[in-house]
Amino acid sequence: MQILLNKLIYGHYIVTALKPGDELKTREKDYLAAGTVNWLSQLSFEPPMIGVAIGLKAELNETIDYSEHFTVHLLKEGQEDWIEKFSGNSQIAEGKINGVPFIKKDHALILEGTLGYFTCKVERSINNGDHTLHIGTVISTNVVAGNSQPICSKETGPTYTLADIAG
Amino acid sequence: MQILLNKLIYGHYIVTALKPGDELKTREKDYLAAGTVNWLSQLSFEPPMIGVAIGLKAELNETIDYSEHFTVHLLKEGQEDWIEKFSGNSQIAEGKINGVPFIKKDHALILEGTLGYFTCKVERSINNGDHTLHIGTVISTNVVAGNSQPICSKETGPTYTLADIAG
Repeated sequence: MQILLNKLIYGHYIVTALKPGDELKTREKDYLAAGTVNWLSQLSFEPPMIGVAIGLKAELNETIDYSEHFTVHLLKEGQEDWIEKFSGNSQIAEGKINGVPFIKKDHALILEGTLGYFTCKVERSINNGDHTLHIGTVISTNVVAGNSQPICSKETGPTYTLADIAG
Repeated sequence: MQILLNKLIYGHYIVTALKPGDELKTREKDYLAAGTVNWLSQLSFEPPMIGVAIGLKAELNETIDYSEHFTVHLLKEGQEDWIEKFSGNSQIAEGKINGVPFIKKDHALILEGTLGYFTCKVERSINNGDHTLHIGTVISTNVVAGNSQPICSKETGPTYTLADIAG
């Protein structure tokens, strides 16, 4: 079964989420998370909506629940090493997440240097098997490097496996 | 906004649905439909689940509702003309749909000559904007041409636009 499913085509995205600490009663520290995602698709033209499937136990999944927003970054050719870099739990230090500079803006954690990014407001979240599907409406988009080409799973081969969601 | 969303990466698939007439009280004729789809992603490893977004008014959407199953065919390199061929309502004649020979098997309409195909049983269907997202569990897979390469939207450019779902 996996042989055929591995032939499905995906992009490579870094999805981030931010819940500002000043909106929380129980702590002051922001919740931040970021992770590599393949399982993402547009779901509607009008309004523009996006669905993204995140491993049930990923810290990113919980952070999207807190934030009720998520931001999708498109990786560009030359950033293939980001796929691995963002595949585990995030390391945050000195304005960088997994070594990549970022800024916080409203409910978005924005990584520097990608092809572009868009932020979605979550409309609903549905558990399917071992993942949660978050469905959001696109509320803002930003093209950073419009002449760059995105990375495709046909070029990299399948990079997302059951082992990635274990634990 | 569309500039960035057009950079998202998709495969090209033909999704089919069949509701056998002998299961219907009101008619004897089978319901059959097929259409080109880009907005498709795996959603879970265990069990393997797939989500596919179909235009609200497409005949394929209604037929999936009747059938409670859908079958996804992966197009292979060289079949780029199938993208257009299956973009409108289906023409069925003499064992062919839009000129492509097919067979019926249980609740599946299987097209000849693709890279491979899998059939899903629908678990839930959710309307989001102008599309319905059908989420199904993969119940069977068949690799037909395992050494062939699938077609990617990065190669073809975006082929699915708002005009395709009009009417």
